[in-house]
Amino acid sequence: MIGRLNHVAIAVPDLEAAAAQYRMTLGAEVGPPQDEPDHGVTVVFITLPNTKVELLYPLGESSPIQGFLDKNPSGGIHHMCFEVDDILAARDRLKAEGARVLGTGEPKIGAHGKPVLFLHPKDFNGCLIELEQV
Amino acid sequence: MIGRLNHVAIAVPDLEAAAAQYRMTLGAEVGPPQDEPDHGVTVVFITLPNTKVELLYPLGESSPIQGFLDKNPSGGIHHMCFEVDDILAARDRLKAEGARVLGTGEPKIGAHGKPVLFLHPKDFNGCLIELEQV
Repeated sequence: MIGRLNHVAIAVPDLEAAAAQYRMTLGAEVGPPQDEPDHGVTVVFITLPNTKVELLYPLGESSPIQGFLDKNPSGGIHHMCFEVDDILAARDRLKAEGARVLGTGEPKIGAHGKPVLFLHPKDFNGCLIELEQV
Repeated sequence: MIGRLNHVAIAVPDLEAAAAQYRMTLGAEVGPPQDEPDHGVTVVFITLPNTKVELLYPLGESSPIQGFLDKNPSGGIHHMCFEVDDILAARDRLKAEGARVLGTGEPKIGAHGKPVLFLHPKDFNGCLIELEQV
Protein backbone atom coordinates (compact mmCIF):
# COMPACT_ATOMS: atom_id res chain seq x y z
CA MET A 1 0.00 0.00 0.00
CA ILE A 2 2.53 2.64 1.01
CA GLY A 3 4.78 3.76 -1.82
CA ARG A 4 7.65 6.23 -1.87
CA LEU A 5 8.82 8.13 1.17
CA ASN A 6 7.72 11.57 0.04
CA HIS A 7 9.57 13.49 2.76
CA VAL A 8 10.88 13.59 6.28
CA ALA A 9 9.79 16.72 8.15
CA ILE A 10 11.98 18.36 10.78
CA ALA A 11 10.69 21.00 13.18
CA VAL A 12 13.41 23.61 13.71
CA PRO A 13 13.74 26.45 16.21
CA ASP A 14 15.56 28.77 13.76
CA LEU A 15 14.54 28.31 10.13
CA GLU A 16 17.18 30.59 8.64
CA ALA A 17 20.00 28.92 10.54
CA ALA A 18 18.73 25.42 9.71
CA ALA A 19 18.38 26.25 6.00
CA ALA A 20 21.88 27.75 5.94
CA GLN A 21 23.26 24.67 7.66
CA TYR A 22 21.73 22.26 5.15
CA ARG A 23 22.96 24.46 2.29
CA MET A 24 26.45 25.28 3.53
CA THR A 25 27.47 22.61 6.02
CA LEU A 26 25.67 19.63 4.51
CA GLY A 27 25.90 20.90 0.94
CA ALA A 28 22.30 20.14 -0.03
CA GLU A 29 19.94 21.82 -2.50
CA VAL A 30 17.83 24.12 -0.31
CA GLY A 31 14.86 26.15 -1.54
CA PRO A 32 13.49 29.47 -0.27
CA PRO A 33 11.15 29.67 2.76
CA GLN A 34 7.48 29.32 1.82
CA ASP A 35 4.69 30.45 4.11
CA GLU A 36 1.80 28.01 4.32
CA PRO A 37 -0.74 29.99 6.35
CA ASP A 38 -3.42 27.31 5.94
CA HIS A 39 -1.10 24.84 7.68
CA GLY A 40 0.45 27.17 10.25
CA VAL A 41 4.01 26.58 9.05
CA THR A 42 6.77 28.14 7.06
CA VAL A 43 8.50 25.41 5.06
CA VAL A 44 11.91 25.07 3.46
CA PHE A 45 12.23 22.19 1.01
CA ILE A 46 15.54 20.36 0.76
CA THR A 47 15.76 18.31 -2.41
CA LEU A 48 17.80 15.11 -2.18
CA PRO A 49 18.30 12.80 -5.17
CA ASN A 50 15.61 10.37 -3.98
CA THR A 51 13.32 12.24 -1.58
CA LYS A 52 12.90 15.53 0.30
CA VAL A 53 13.60 16.85 3.76
CA GLU A 54 11.22 19.58 4.88
CA LEU A 55 12.19 22.08 7.55
CA LEU A 56 9.11 23.31 9.44
CA TYR A 57 8.85 26.50 11.47
CA PRO A 58 5.69 27.78 13.21
CA LEU A 59 3.61 30.40 11.41
CA GLY A 60 0.79 32.23 13.18
CA GLU A 61 -0.82 31.80 16.57
CA SER A 62 -1.97 28.19 16.48
CA SER A 63 0.74 26.39 14.57
CA PRO A 64 0.48 22.59 14.81
CA ILE A 65 4.23 22.35 15.44
CA GLN A 66 4.50 24.90 18.27
CA GLY A 67 3.72 22.27 20.89
CA PHE A 68 6.36 19.97 19.45
CA LEU A 69 8.98 22.74 19.66
CA ASP A 70 7.88 23.59 23.21
CA LYS A 71 8.61 19.98 24.16
CA ASN A 72 11.72 19.75 21.96
CA PRO A 73 13.37 23.18 22.01
CA SER A 74 16.31 22.02 19.86
CA GLY A 75 13.88 20.72 17.23
CA GLY A 76 13.53 17.17 16.00
CA ILE A 77 12.08 14.86 13.39
CA HIS A 78 8.36 15.68 13.38
CA HIS A 79 6.87 13.23 10.90
CA MET A 80 7.50 11.16 7.80
CA CYS A 81 5.23 11.09 4.78
CA PHE A 82 4.48 8.03 2.67
CA GLU A 83 2.80 8.24 -0.70
CA VAL A 84 -0.34 6.24 -1.46
CA ASP A 85 -2.30 5.86 -4.68
CA ASP A 86 -5.75 6.11 -3.11
CA ILE A 87 -6.02 7.86 0.21
CA LEU A 88 -9.61 6.82 0.92
CA ALA A 89 -8.81 3.16 0.29
CA ALA A 90 -5.74 3.55 2.50
CA ARG A 91 -7.77 5.15 5.26
CA ASP A 92 -10.42 2.46 5.17
CA ARG A 93 -7.83 -0.32 5.28
CA LEU A 94 -6.07 1.33 8.22
CA LYS A 95 -9.28 1.84 10.15
CA ALA A 96 -10.30 -1.75 9.49
CA GLU A 97 -6.97 -2.82 11.00
CA GLY A 98 -7.69 -0.71 14.09
CA ALA A 99 -5.31 2.19 13.40
CA ARG A 100 -6.46 5.66 14.37
CA VAL A 101 -6.58 8.44 11.79
CA LEU A 102 -6.17 11.93 13.28
CA GLY A 103 -8.83 14.64 12.98
CA THR A 104 -12.15 13.95 11.32
CA GLY A 105 -10.81 11.09 9.24
CA GLU A 106 -11.49 13.04 6.07
CA PRO A 107 -8.42 13.91 3.98
CA LYS A 108 -7.32 17.54 3.96
CA ILE A 109 -5.40 19.31 1.25
CA GLY A 110 -1.77 19.28 2.41
CA ALA A 111 1.12 21.64 1.87
CA HIS A 112 1.75 20.19 -1.60
CA GLY A 113 -1.87 20.72 -2.72
CA LYS A 114 -2.69 17.01 -2.46
CA PRO A 115 -4.99 15.06 -0.10
CA VAL A 116 -3.30 14.01 3.13
CA LEU A 117 -4.12 12.23 6.36
CA PHE A 118 -2.14 11.80 9.56
CA LEU A 119 -2.04 8.58 11.60
CA HIS A 120 -1.90 8.42 15.39
CA PRO A 121 1.73 8.15 16.61
CA LYS A 122 0.75 5.84 19.46
CA ASP A 123 -0.45 3.30 16.90
CA PHE A 124 2.80 3.50 14.88
CA ASN A 125 5.76 3.11 17.24
CA GLY A 126 5.69 6.72 18.38
CA CYS A 127 6.04 8.02 14.80
CA LEU A 128 3.70 10.57 13.29
CA ILE A 129 2.95 9.28 9.77
CA GLU A 130 1.45 11.40 7.02
CA LEU A 131 -0.10 9.71 4.00
CA GLU A 132 -0.25 11.73 0.80
CA GLN A 133 -2.20 10.74 -2.29
CA VAL A 134 -0.02 11.32 -5.34
CA MET B 1 27.74 16.96 -0.18
CA ILE B 2 24.92 14.81 1.16
CA GLY B 3 23.34 12.57 -1.43
CA ARG B 4 20.44 10.14 -1.15
CA LEU B 5 18.51 9.53 2.04
CA ASN B 6 19.67 5.97 2.66
CA HIS B 7 17.17 5.21 5.40
CA VAL B 8 15.07 6.44 8.28
CA ALA B 9 15.56 4.35 11.43
CA ILE B 10 12.76 3.77 13.91
CA ALA B 11 13.34 2.35 17.38
CA VAL B 12 10.45 0.04 18.26
CA PRO B 13 9.42 -1.61 21.53
CA ASP B 14 8.10 -4.78 19.85
CA LEU B 15 9.94 -5.74 16.66
CA GLU B 16 7.62 -8.55 15.63
CA ALA B 17 4.52 -6.39 16.03
CA ALA B 18 6.11 -3.45 14.20
CA ALA B 19 7.25 -5.65 11.31
CA ALA B 20 3.79 -7.22 11.04
CA GLN B 21 2.22 -3.78 11.06
CA TYR B 22 4.38 -2.49 8.22
CA ARG B 23 3.73 -5.68 6.25
CA MET B 24 0.02 -6.13 6.88
CA THR B 25 -1.42 -2.75 7.81
CA LEU B 26 0.81 -0.51 5.72
CA GLY B 27 1.35 -3.08 2.96
CA ALA B 28 5.11 -2.59 2.63
CA GLU B 29 7.88 -5.01 1.63
CA VAL B 30 9.32 -6.15 4.96
CA GLY B 31 12.40 -8.35 5.35
CA PRO B 32 13.27 -10.84 8.10
CA PRO B 33 14.84 -9.73 11.41
CA GLN B 34 18.65 -9.61 11.27
CA ASP B 35 20.79 -9.61 14.40
CA GLU B 36 23.66 -7.15 14.28
CA PRO B 37 25.59 -8.05 17.45
CA ASP B 38 28.41 -5.63 16.62
CA HIS B 39 25.87 -2.80 16.68
CA GLY B 40 23.68 -3.98 19.52
CA VAL B 41 20.53 -4.09 17.43
CA THR B 42 18.21 -6.43 15.63
CA VAL B 43 17.10 -4.78 12.39
CA VAL B 44 14.17 -5.27 10.05
CA PHE B 45 14.56 -3.60 6.66
CA ILE B 46 11.49 -2.17 4.96
CA THR B 47 12.09 -1.54 1.29
CA LEU B 48 10.21 1.39 -0.23
CA PRO B 49 10.52 2.29 -3.91
CA ASN B 50 12.98 5.12 -3.21
CA THR B 51 14.56 4.45 0.19
CA LYS B 52 14.38 2.20 3.26
CA VAL B 53 12.85 2.32 6.70
CA GLU B 54 14.77 0.35 9.32
CA LEU B 55 13.11 -0.93 12.46
CA LEU B 56 15.61 -1.17 15.33
CA TYR B 57 15.27 -3.28 18.45
CA PRO B 58 17.87 -3.62 21.22
CA LEU B 59 20.19 -6.65 21.12
CA GLY B 60 22.43 -7.50 24.05
CA GLU B 61 23.26 -5.69 27.27
CA SER B 62 24.57 -2.36 26.02
CA SER B 63 22.44 -1.59 22.99
CA PRO B 64 22.81 2.00 21.79
CA ILE B 65 19.06 2.30 21.39
CA GLN B 66 18.03 1.06 24.85
CA GLY B 67 18.33 4.55 26.33
CA PHE B 68 16.17 5.96 23.54
CA LEU B 69 13.45 3.38 24.23
CA ASP B 70 13.68 4.04 27.97
CA LYS B 71 12.93 7.71 27.23
CA ASN B 72 10.41 6.90 24.47
CA PRO B 73 8.62 3.70 25.50
CA SER B 74 6.31 3.79 22.45
CA GLY B 75 9.34 4.05 20.16
CA GLY B 76 10.12 6.86 17.74
CA ILE B 77 12.23 8.01 14.84
CA HIS B 78 15.80 7.41 16.01
CA HIS B 79 17.94 8.77 13.17
CA MET B 80 18.14 9.42 9.45
CA CYS B 81 21.04 8.40 7.25
CA PHE B 82 22.39 10.42 4.33
CA GLU B 83 24.78 8.98 1.80
CA VAL B 84 28.11 10.67 1.06
CA ASP B 85 30.77 9.84 -1.52
CA ASP B 86 33.76 10.40 0.76
CA ILE B 87 33.18 10.11 4.47
CA LEU B 88 36.56 11.50 5.51
CA ALA B 89 36.10 14.58 3.33
CA ALA B 90 32.57 14.96 4.74
CA ARG B 91 33.85 14.66 8.30
CA ASP B 92 36.59 17.23 7.76
CA ARG B 93 34.16 19.69 6.18
CA LEU B 94 31.70 19.25 9.03
CA LYS B 95 34.36 19.69 11.69
CA ALA B 96 35.69 22.79 9.93
CA GLU B 97 32.15 24.20 10.10
CA GLY B 98 32.04 23.52 13.85
CA ALA B 99 29.75 20.48 13.83
CA ARG B 100 30.48 17.71 16.31
CA VAL B 101 31.06 14.16 15.14
CA LEU B 102 30.16 11.52 17.75
CA GLY B 103 32.68 9.05 19.16
CA THR B 104 36.32 9.17 18.16
CA GLY B 105 35.63 10.92 14.88
CA GLU B 106 36.93 7.92 12.98
CA PRO B 107 34.36 6.15 10.76
CA LYS B 108 33.14 2.74 11.92
CA ILE B 109 31.80 -0.04 9.76
CA GLY B 110 28.02 0.28 9.95
CA ALA B 111 25.21 -2.23 9.75
CA HIS B 112 25.46 -2.30 5.93
CA GLY B 113 29.20 -3.05 5.98
CA LYS B 114 30.11 0.49 4.92
CA PRO B 115 31.90 3.32 6.78
CA VAL B 116 29.57 5.47 8.86
CA LEU B 117 29.72 8.44 11.24
CA PHE B 118 27.08 9.98 13.46
CA LEU B 119 26.66 13.74 13.99
CA HIS B 120 25.68 15.37 17.26
CA PRO B 121 21.90 15.94 17.43
CA LYS B 122 22.32 19.22 19.27
CA ASP B 123 24.17 20.60 16.25
CA PHE B 124 21.46 19.46 13.80
CA ASN B 125 18.05 20.60 15.07
CA GLY B 126 17.70 17.75 17.54
CA CYS B 127 18.12 15.12 14.79
CA LEU B 128 20.62 12.31 14.98
CA ILE B 129 22.20 12.14 11.51
CA GLU B 130 24.19 9.18 10.23
CA LEU B 131 26.46 9.61 7.23
CA GLU B 132 27.25 6.50 5.20
CA GLN B 133 29.88 6.29 2.51
CA VAL B 134 28.45 4.46 -0.50
